[in-house]
Amino acid sequence: MTTTTEKLNELKARLRDVADLNSVGAVLHWDQATYMPPGGAAARGRQMAVVGRIAQEMFSDPATGRLLDELRLYEESLPYDSDDASLIRVARRDYEKAVKIPPDFLSAFYEHSATSYQAWTEARPANDFARVRPLLEKTLDMSRRMADFFPGYDHIADPLIDFADYGMKAADVRKVFAELREALVPLVRAITSQEPADDSCLKKHFPEQRQLAFGRKVIERFGYDFLRGRQDKTHHPFETKFSTGDVRITTRIKEDDLGYGFFSTTHESGHALYEQGVNPSFEGTPLNEGTSSGVHESQSRTWENLVSRSRPFWEHFYPQLQDAFPEQLASVPLDEFYRAVNTVRRSLIRTEADEVTYNLHVMIRFELELRMLEGRLEVNDLPEAWHAAYDADLGIVAPSDVDGCMQDVHWFGGHIGGAFQGYTLGNVMSAQFFDAALAAHPEIPSEIGRGEFGALHSWLKENIYCHGRKYTASELLHRVTGGGLDIAPYIRYLRGKFGELYSL
Amino acid sequence: MTTTTEKLNELKARLRDVADLNSVGAVLHWDQATYMPPGGAAARGRQMAVVGRIAQEMFSDPATGRLLDELRLYEESLPYDSDDASLIRVARRDYEKAVKIPPDFLSAFYEHSATSYQAWTEARPANDFARVRPLLEKTLDMSRRMADFFPGYDHIADPLIDFADYGMKAADVRKVFAELREALVPLVRAITSQEPADDSCLKKHFPEQRQLAFGRKVIERFGYDFLRGRQDKTHHPFETKFSTGDVRITTRIKEDDLGYGFFSTTHESGHALYEQGVNPSFEGTPLNEGTSSGVHESQSRTWENLVSRSRPFWEHFYPQLQDAFPEQLASVPLDEFYRAVNTVRRSLIRTEADEVTYNLHVMIRFELELRMLEGRLEVNDLPEAWHAAYDADLGIVAPSDVDGCMQDVHWFGGHIGGAFQGYTLGNVMSAQFFDAALAAHPEIPSEIGRGEFGALHSWLKENIYCHGRKYTASELLHRVTGGGLDIAPYIRYLRGKFGELYSL
Repeated sequence: MTTTTEKLNELKARLRDVADLNSVGAVLHWDQATYMPPGGAAARGRQMAVVGRIAQEMFSDPATGRLLDELRLYEESLPYDSDDASLIRVARRDYEKAVKIPPDFLSAFYEHSATSYQAWTEARPANDFARVRPLLEKTLDMSRRMADFFPGYDHIADPLIDFADYGMKAADVRKVFAELREALVPLVRAITSQEPADDSCLKKHFPEQRQLAFGRKVIERFGYDFLRGRQDKTHHPFETKFSTGDVRITTRIKEDDLGYGFFSTTHESGHALYEQGVNPSFEGTPLNEGTSSGVHESQSRTWENLVSRSRPFWEHFYPQLQDAFPEQLASVPLDEFYRAVNTVRRSLIRTEADEVTYNLHVMIRFELELRMLEGRLEVNDLPEAWHAAYDADLGIVAPSDVDGCMQDVHWFGGHIGGAFQGYTLGNVMSAQFFDAALAAHPEIPSEIGRGEFGALHSWLKENIYCHGRKYTASELLHRVTGGGLDIAPYIRYLRGKFGELYSL
Repeated sequence: MTTTTEKLNELKARLRDVADLNSVGAVLHWDQATYMPPGGAAARGRQMAVVGRIAQEMFSDPATGRLLDELRLYEESLPYDSDDASLIRVARRDYEKAVKIPPDFLSAFYEHSATSYQAWTEARPANDFARVRPLLEKTLDMSRRMADFFPGYDHIADPLIDFADYGMKAADVRKVFAELREALVPLVRAITSQEPADDSCLKKHFPEQRQLAFGRKVIERFGYDFLRGRQDKTHHPFETKFSTGDVRITTRIKEDDLGYGFFSTTHESGHALYEQGVNPSFEGTPLNEGTSSGVHESQSRTWENLVSRSRPFWEHFYPQLQDAFPEQLASVPLDEFYRAVNTVRRSLIRTEADEVTYNLHVMIRFELELRMLEGRLEVNDLPEAWHAAYDADLGIVAPSDVDGCMQDVHWFGGHIGGAFQGYTLGNVMSAQFFDAALAAHPEIPSEIGRGEFGALHSWLKENIYCHGRKYTASELLHRVTGGGLDIAPYIRYLRGKFGELYSL
């Protein structure tokens, strides 16, 4: 007779293999993005596919389901937040989702995504939406079919949103976004009716190596552990985790734009601090990662914005930055620099948008996703709908689709639906979490002003990072803040900071 | 009813998955050796193990055997050297070996190898043979057991040699080595009775980046395709293949030793030219690699020695090297430099040994392996036996085991038996192949003197590289040279080159 301990060990061994195979897939992707020579592309697609397929088969195997069933009584005998109960609970949630998607569909979907992604990388520089249109139509069709494997939804986007932000529905997101829009639109109007801050001091020539060195020094101060990670260069910056001991980030340096590389570095370091901070005993389990797209983004935005675009931060680091770039910055006062890294303008590119307008970019995408899924917008009409939405919300229109609906990879390398809401949920939560941290440690801003981050980092580790996926985003919010999603702290933060900057 | 074509496609699909998983393992290893942060080590071991285990299970599955049986008639209906017949033949050879080794033994063996390798990396700097001795005893025991899964051998080392150099037996190797020794010993004696050539010109300070740039320029001229490969730095240089389109090499630069990095670069580029040159239609099959350890080494030694240590080579490249390092080399004449890169001396380290003494290093290891496997030498007595052999054959004794029996990774990260003979078989074959190339293209030396390598590279591609594993080493030798293994061309080459250098 098999004991509960044996069953649990069997489950853990199976989950560990799955986790290791998923990490292997991540290594293959990292190598592809960083160092792989062009000739490696065709085989790399096959290599990633075979590893992904095996991981999926191993996880969806009925044996996993049997073990989860057999362990249900044990799970129920444990406190909800015990490690074992959480492991079984989260594994079951993943399993029940995984078995609903037919393996053949999933293979076809991954293959289509790879084709579509490849076509996008080629069509984008040529501004050739016509080329990707039929692929995007197929993506939309497959996204709808994916959702239909989860019948009983209120909105067809719900199952897709649920993949990234478990527990959120289209209606919840729409409600939060509507409140946010109401507060943001007048703020954007008030700021952009003034001259934008002069950020020409960021647009001089900044040699790559010195940019990299400065960024690394800063994130090492944050607490990013280079013995358990590294930073490389890629076209699109990202964070990736191979194990608790190996959490890597990438960046891209533009020698004529100091902000791009620095804020992408602090942004990705936020994701990485989260992953490096997960309880190491979760290694090899489904608990060993951040709990949702929104909570993950709350951490990247915390370190990118709440920390690295704050005045205390630059009060400490600006003299060091001036030392690194004396020709470029010696004659630029702190005040001018601080305004430059917080310039607000109506712009076209989401990833380069300022803190105030950023969420408008996200809302545009989220609504377009929903309209496509609802059948109210044809892919063929997407470019025009995009331009119309930018015109309405931001008052500008992109000269081409490259800076329009082809600007983000998401729809071209994955599914339509659920891809974007996490960015704005993250912004909202970042302020909620930061307020809670400040309440516990009012000394955080003055620490930041001394280039120290111990209080903030420790608080985030203890209250958010260490839990990995043990709690859902909603559970985590309630534990940490005593309530649910709430835009008030975020709006208060934006009004405070930008009200002062723009004398509103 | 399944047709032959369907069965063949099924076999190919299965082999392709196995090949892709093996390539994935190679990516994991490459990353570990190049860029992985220290924190990644523990999980990386697990990741490599799970991928290796799955590849092994998939290949050894009885379904593979059934397909191979069902395709036997088809195979026999085809010419021996047709692609399909060769694919089936080589896959069957591998399969029949694979199924003889119990999976549990193999897992235990890999695990032990990883432990032993790790201990070696730590014990070596501490010159602590006592620490690795028990592990090496287990390695010896496991090597014997490994051999015993292949009963009916003449010598217990035969099955182990066969893994690396298919078709060779201990007796064959001993016979070749005895002939070689007879010719080499007097040559070494004659040369080393003279003052060694002055190679101090190689021991100045040579900045890393310029060394790397020069090496890359040279191997690109050889024909190494950087669109299908790249070079990185590792502690131990190696070549690795992820696909026909992605064949990478590594090197190590010593700023106080120009020869180390340059000849490791040309050496590994020889391995890589071989792998880049395999018929691309073999991708995803067991034919898609070099055919044996010996033939592989013949190619690395061809480009390292026959080409890059030749006079015509330096007649062309030395002025460019002087331009790269004017302070160090402007006043060093070509003749002095050529003698320096061909210094012969009785030395302790195999990988840094010159062309003349190199094989003595290999023979010492090969005989020690056999004596341990035969039970005539205890692991406990290995250090002394090593020193005694060096004293007898080379007239020098290492001051410690670091430069003695702990100097090579082979016994500490794999099995005892079959690890070393390929190096000397490769030297012998390199001269045989090169003579055949010269017979077909007498203009090769003058081309090399112009920094051109097209005739040699094309000939090697057509006659050796493209075939991958289609032919065994012995078949390849017979096809190319009309005969079997023969030391005469190699001895002639050494006597010619070093006779002139040392006025013998």
